[in-house]
Amino acid sequence: MQGQSQQQAYDRGITIFSPDGRLYQVEYAREAVKRGTASIGIRTEEGVVLVVDKRIRSPLMERTSVEKIHKADDHIGIASAGHVADARQLIDFARRQAQVNQLRYEEPIGVETLTKAVTDHIQQYTQVGGARPFGVALIIGGIENGEPRLYETDPSGTPYEWQALAVGADRGDIEDYLEEHYRDDLALNEGVDLALEALASVNDGELTPEGIGLATVSVGDDGFGQLSDDEIEDHLEAAGLLADESDDDPDADDGE
Amino acid sequence: MQGQSQQQAYDRGITIFSPDGRLYQVEYAREAVKRGTASIGIRTEEGVVLVVDKRIRSPLMERTSVEKIHKADDHIGIASAGHVADARQLIDFARRQAQVNQLRYEEPIGVETLTKAVTDHIQQYTQVGGARPFGVALIIGGIENGEPRLYETDPSGTPYEWQALAVGADRGDIEDYLEEHYRDDLALNEGVDLALEALASVNDGELTPEGIGLATVSVGDDGFGQLSDDEIEDHLEAAGLLADESDDDPDADDGE
Amino acid sequence: MQGQSQQQAYDRGITIFSPDGRLYQVEYAREAVKRGTASIGIRTEEGVVLVVDKRIRSPLMERTSVEKIHKADDHIGIASAGHVADARQLIDFARRQAQVNQLRYEEPIGVETLTKAVTDHIQQYTQVGGARPFGVALIIGGIENGEPRLYETDPSGTPYEWQALAVGADRGDIEDYLEEHYRDDLALNEGVDLALEALASVNDGELTPEGIGLATVSVGDDGFGQLSDDEIEDHLEAAGLLADESDDDPDADDGE
Amino acid sequence: MQGQSQQQAYDRGITIFSPDGRLYQVEYAREAVKRGTASIGIRTEEGVVLVVDKRIRSPLMERTSVEKIHKADDHIGIASAGHVADARQLIDFARRQAQVNQLRYEEPIGVETLTKAVTDHIQQYTQVGGARPFGVALIIGGIENGEPRLYETDPSGTPYEWQALAVGADRGDIEDYLEEHYRDDLALNEGVDLALEALASVNDGELTPEGIGLATVSVGDDGFGQLSDDEIEDHLEAAGLLADESDDDPDADDGE
Amino acid sequence: MQGQSQQQAYDRGITIFSPDGRLYQVEYAREAVKRGTASIGIRTEEGVVLVVDKRIRSPLMERTSVEKIHKADDHIGIASAGHVADARQLIDFARRQAQVNQLRYEEPIGVETLTKAVTDHIQQYTQVGGARPFGVALIIGGIENGEPRLYETDPSGTPYEWQALAVGADRGDIEDYLEEHYRDDLALNEGVDLALEALASVNDGELTPEGIGLATVSVGDDGFGQLSDDEIEDHLEAAGLLADESDDDPDADDGE
Amino acid sequence: MQGQSQQQAYDRGITIFSPDGRLYQVEYAREAVKRGTASIGIRTEEGVVLVVDKRIRSPLMERTSVEKIHKADDHIGIASAGHVADARQLIDFARRQAQVNQLRYEEPIGVETLTKAVTDHIQQYTQVGGARPFGVALIIGGIENGEPRLYETDPSGTPYEWQALAVGADRGDIEDYLEEHYRDDLALNEGVDLALEALASVNDGELTPEGIGLATVSVGDDGFGQLSDDEIEDHLEAAGLLADESDDDPDADDGE
Amino acid sequence: MQGQSQQQAYDRGITIFSPDGRLYQVEYAREAVKRGTASIGIRTEEGVVLVVDKRIRSPLMERTSVEKIHKADDHIGIASAGHVADARQLIDFARRQAQVNQLRYEEPIGVETLTKAVTDHIQQYTQVGGARPFGVALIIGGIENGEPRLYETDPSGTPYEWQALAVGADRGDIEDYLEEHYRDDLALNEGVDLALEALASVNDGELTPEGIGLATVSVGDDGFGQLSDDEIEDHLEAAGLLADESDDDPDADDGE
Repeated sequence: MQGQSQQQAYDRGITIFSPDGRLYQVEYAREAVKRGTASIGIRTEEGVVLVVDKRIRSPLMERTSVEKIHKADDHIGIASAGHVADARQLIDFARRQAQVNQLRYEEPIGVETLTKAVTDHIQQYTQVGGARPFGVALIIGGIENGEPRLYETDPSGTPYEWQALAVGADRGDIEDYLEEHYRDDLALNEGVDLALEALASVNDGELTPEGIGLATVSVGDDGFGQLSDDEIEDHLEAAGLLADESDDDPDADDGE
Repeated sequence: MQGQSQQQAYDRGITIFSPDGRLYQVEYAREAVKRGTASIGIRTEEGVVLVVDKRIRSPLMERTSVEKIHKADDHIGIASAGHVADARQLIDFARRQAQVNQLRYEEPIGVETLTKAVTDHIQQYTQVGGARPFGVALIIGGIENGEPRLYETDPSGTPYEWQALAVGADRGDIEDYLEEHYRDDLALNEGVDLALEALASVNDGELTPEGIGLATVSVGDDGFGQLSDDEIEDHLEAAGLLADESDDDPDADDGE
Repeated sequence: MQGQSQQQAYDRGITIFSPDGRLYQVEYAREAVKRGTASIGIRTEEGVVLVVDKRIRSPLMERTSVEKIHKADDHIGIASAGHVADARQLIDFARRQAQVNQLRYEEPIGVETLTKAVTDHIQQYTQVGGARPFGVALIIGGIENGEPRLYETDPSGTPYEWQALAVGADRGDIEDYLEEHYRDDLALNEGVDLALEALASVNDGELTPEGIGLATVSVGDDGFGQLSDDEIEDHLEAAGLLADESDDDPDADDGE
Repeated sequence: MQGQSQQQAYDRGITIFSPDGRLYQVEYAREAVKRGTASIGIRTEEGVVLVVDKRIRSPLMERTSVEKIHKADDHIGIASAGHVADARQLIDFARRQAQVNQLRYEEPIGVETLTKAVTDHIQQYTQVGGARPFGVALIIGGIENGEPRLYETDPSGTPYEWQALAVGADRGDIEDYLEEHYRDDLALNEGVDLALEALASVNDGELTPEGIGLATVSVGDDGFGQLSDDEIEDHLEAAGLLADESDDDPDADDGE
Repeated sequence: MQGQSQQQAYDRGITIFSPDGRLYQVEYAREAVKRGTASIGIRTEEGVVLVVDKRIRSPLMERTSVEKIHKADDHIGIASAGHVADARQLIDFARRQAQVNQLRYEEPIGVETLTKAVTDHIQQYTQVGGARPFGVALIIGGIENGEPRLYETDPSGTPYEWQALAVGADRGDIEDYLEEHYRDDLALNEGVDLALEALASVNDGELTPEGIGLATVSVGDDGFGQLSDDEIEDHLEAAGLLADESDDDPDADDGE
Repeated sequence: MQGQSQQQAYDRGITIFSPDGRLYQVEYAREAVKRGTASIGIRTEEGVVLVVDKRIRSPLMERTSVEKIHKADDHIGIASAGHVADARQLIDFARRQAQVNQLRYEEPIGVETLTKAVTDHIQQYTQVGGARPFGVALIIGGIENGEPRLYETDPSGTPYEWQALAVGADRGDIEDYLEEHYRDDLALNEGVDLALEALASVNDGELTPEGIGLATVSVGDDGFGQLSDDEIEDHLEAAGLLADESDDDPDADDGE
Repeated sequence: MQGQSQQQAYDRGITIFSPDGRLYQVEYAREAVKRGTASIGIRTEEGVVLVVDKRIRSPLMERTSVEKIHKADDHIGIASAGHVADARQLIDFARRQAQVNQLRYEEPIGVETLTKAVTDHIQQYTQVGGARPFGVALIIGGIENGEPRLYETDPSGTPYEWQALAVGADRGDIEDYLEEHYRDDLALNEGVDLALEALASVNDGELTPEGIGLATVSVGDDGFGQLSDDEIEDHLEAAGLLADESDDDPDADDGE
């Protein structure tokens, strides 16, 4: 109890350290990320795969409006987990950065450059007063100099590069699955399958096309592209992951 | 009790997360929405229907001054639920966005574009200090490229697209009704009937023309239009929902 | 007691919601309105009637300086109840709006337009930090396109249109009287009588000319005009409401 | 005790209402006014009389430096009670208003216009955060269109017009005296006598010229003028109010 | 105890009144003045005398660096008591005012004008938030139109004019001595003697030249001038106040 | 316990001293540094060595994205320990300083000049309100006028110059090792070995190339350069520090 | 205990007075000065001597980076005690003042002028909110018009001039030594010896060259200059103060 009340003494101000050097508001923002459904990113030799769990709370809601995958530029896609409205702010920021880079240097922005512009923006909200941190994590995947790159931004403003990762609910279990099955010589289609299998591993082994968003950023000319429900269904069927019927869990929404 | 006092520790600051990653002020703003009478939106093949419950506290109050349906542009209508004065601020914001778009691009603003401009505006009030969140939810319905579109904005600043939805009091019961009876091939008039039936379902099966506001945004040339009391009465009569007499409940006001 | 202490936890910040979605500071501002003496507005076919209770605390005070009726423009009058100094700020704001409208569009400002400009101004003080809400309610009456219009602004910034209403002390009892006796085909003089009767109904059936302010905004050329004590006395006498002598209650002042 | 602790919960913030709609900081500022020695204003047919109690704490202090009567313009005088330094700020504000009016319209500022400019300035300090209210009340007396006018400003920013009034210590008793003896057909000299008698009524019936400040603003060409000690002594002697010797109470100072 | 805790409830905010209309922070700033050693001002027919107690905490400290007497202009001197660093800010402010006056009007600033500029500056720090009041009192003495003038500024921002006064430690006892012995027809040298006697009266009747600062502002051409130790010693000797040896009390410093 | 509660009274505000003259927020920021893995700097006659512990939490994370060594300019490298996102802000600041110096003076920035620009920037965050201190320590190593220089910045904004030092976890033990084994006539390669040995001394005597970052800034033309994994492995093997297999501790991450 | 809790009530706000007129934050900043090792200044006929205790926490730290003596201009040196990073801010401020003076008036800045510019800057941080006071004391020594001058700045912003003084740890004991042995006709070398003896008096009578910083500002052409370790050793040896070996106390650092 002493511990609890001591924690309360340091967790309500956004710009202060606790005696053991922690920033509680940033840690709580990470909890907001965990409240969102999972998003997965996988880097293959041929490109990057982004898969998101987009279960919705009502059959009358348009699935397409649950935006967890965003196109930042022709060669960069972003998947998010956590506070949806916060994610939109960061996506808008990322798009402006990409446009400015194109205008100023007449070349596409690098994935690492874009990621670090976003994380520096996030960091400001953890140090300067007058606003709370962003309650969202992003997976930024794209092609840079012909090479696939896959990054994560977290609420502290730290950038990480990954071969494969998950953010949001069940992150630990999904990453366990990825660590076991990931190979760095995957083809893009194999990466799609691995991402779906990883997501299915925390969903009783079954998925429905309607509950999933899926995009790839390929090394080739295609760049960023989202898969249709039919294409997702084909992948699920081929992988033996297709659920018998759509059974969206009405109790799970998107982390709001 | 411990839980209660712990909640109180995190719910009075607008820009902080609770230890479990929630934003209490945003959740309380959603309570302010629930305190308002219901508003319903339905998307049909021929256009969008907006129906609002506008019970008033005194027979001497002008019903037309209880503004819950607003014209944002020739092709977009907005229904609100919750804090009326807050709604006016967002409606004004939306109208300015629509005008600016028309002036700048010489074409009507898209419904999705408008919705996201509004939700990004709302999000700012949940992250940056010095102001409280907006205590209102909007249903934004309109025509975009000849297609009916129906959106919701909530106090967190998240945009959702719907086939049919309700905001405000009795949201859950009304949405249950809609989920059961909605078809995506409804004619506009059928959409009007469904909206009235859904509202009647939480009002003992009866409605009066005076207690209702009703607007449609049709795919055709008519665009946004509000129905007169007589037209509403015709609909109610045809649907067998017309109350014997006007019995506005004086205890229910508009969420203030 | 628990309830009381819980209320205290949410009522001292101007920009926060309580867990049940209420804005306590706005509700307390409404209490400031109730502390002021009553003001009444009545809309007739021939114009609008404004009657105010202007009891003063000392016979040496100039009654005319207890300003509860204000001319906003040639065709618009405003009666207030509550915090007098706050009312002056809003009246000044309204007059500037009327002048700007006249200069910019070369036509008188609409009553509804003016009311909403005022309520939008009021709303800002309920959402943005650094100031308290306005502790005053206004009755804005005027002529728009030849039609009498009668509006109310409350401390939340919500505009309402009325046929007849009261604000300030005894609002409930006066409105009960108005609901019982109001007809929408009243002549202007009948409206004056009804307003006086309604005010007398909460003053032992008697009024003195000195304790009353009375203005009309007529549809005709006269526009806004205040009645003299003699004219008020004639009305009171004709209505059988004239008190035997001036017995201003020295304990009641104007809500400060 | 509960009541007391409840009051304390609402009286330390300048921009919040208490649950019963009061602004405690404004009420406490009124207490600061009561801590100052009394000032009296009387309106006669021939002009306005201002009399102030200027007892000083030491015989070595220059009485003239206890400034409670100020010339705002040739035709307007101001007497104050309460926090002296605050009074100086408002007097400076009033003088600038008078000068600006003269420059802009080439005519002397109206007494009512000046008063309301001052009260609107005071009101801002009761609504907007970052400063406390003014702890002073002013009596503004002057000639407007050949007519004597007499106004009061209080810490809430409300303007009142009076025939005769007192502010500061013993306000109630002095006003009782004035209500009993005031006539609206007084000559200026009679007004001076009445003011002195009223002040003497709360000082054991005796006054010394040194303990008094006295100014008149006459309808004629003289305008504002302060009386010398000899002139005051003549008045006191004629009125039978002259104390045997100067016995300034060293315990009473000027409200600081 | 209740009283004490009640006082604590109102004394920590700089911009709020207590329920009885007091400004505690200003009163505490007056305590800061009392913590400083005494300063004395005396007005004679021939000029103004300023005497300050400048005991220092170490024999190695340069007495001249304990600045309690300042030259504001050729014809104005200022003595201070209280917080030394605060005094410097006000002295700088006063000097700039004097220079600006000289440049703008090509004549020396009046003593009263200068004093009121300083007190208006001080008042701002008692009303507007974000800073504490000045913890210093000034004695401003000078010649205006050939007449000696002597003013005091206190932490509330109130100006007082005096024939003779003391600020800082032992103010009450010194003023008692001055009230008993002051005559308004003193020669300048007699004023010097009186000031020294008054200071000696609270120092066991003895003073050392080193523990004293002494300046005069004479009506004649000399204007402001500080006396040397030898001149002070002559005065002390002539007045029988010269201590046998320098016995500065090491425990008393200058109010910091 | 008293001590603990007393500490809590002074450690939550960033801009206040405790009664014993400490700045708790700065001390807590130092704790944030200790939560990060160790970084080591060694100055040799031939250049500067920077070695960092970059254990990562998952085998799927790209080691290169755990940025603890940064190139500030051709002749200056920086290693960090503590809050990663904060480090990035300071690194960006340092790079801008280096560029500005090059542009303005057309010569490389001095290591000391750069360090002090960074520490002055850090100090501002410990004195001025509205932001928290930086939770990071930097080791800044480089060549200035042909001489190797090695500096530390800490969260208080104090610059220190070192021959050899460690920051982050196990600082004390590593510095003990360095004090025992450091000689000022080390060759660059010997400095590399010493740094690795020192780091191994707190890691059971074993290191893996993957868990380490290593850079040198040599006096010669090469300037700043990072060693490859193979080069690090060679050093580890030669020093007998090479672990049998990569056994990154999954429980230790980088101080976030 | 009551006293303690009462103190806590007034010591956490930087801009408020306690009931007895003290500024606790300034007093706590003085404690921060006492936490720093001692610095000593001595004024002789031939110049000023600055001696500082620069014990360091590790033999690997470069002694020269413990900057306690700074050159402000060719003719002015500054020694500091307390918070090192704060000292750097004031030194930078002092240097800029010196440069501006040189550019503007084409002559070196006076020592007193410089000191007062610094103290006025310090005072602002004790009165205006939003920042804490500076936790450092400076000894400013230099030549002005051929005369040696020696000043102190303290955290309150008060300037003092001294013949000889100490700041930081053991101030009292060192000043006792100085008071006993200081003569105002010392030669510069004798001043160096006295400063070393005074410092040795609180260090068991022994000093090491490495633990000391020493600078002189001579009246002649040399101006400011720091002594080398060898020169310091010569002085120590001649004075019989040289310790047998360097035994820096590792537990004492520089006041951070």
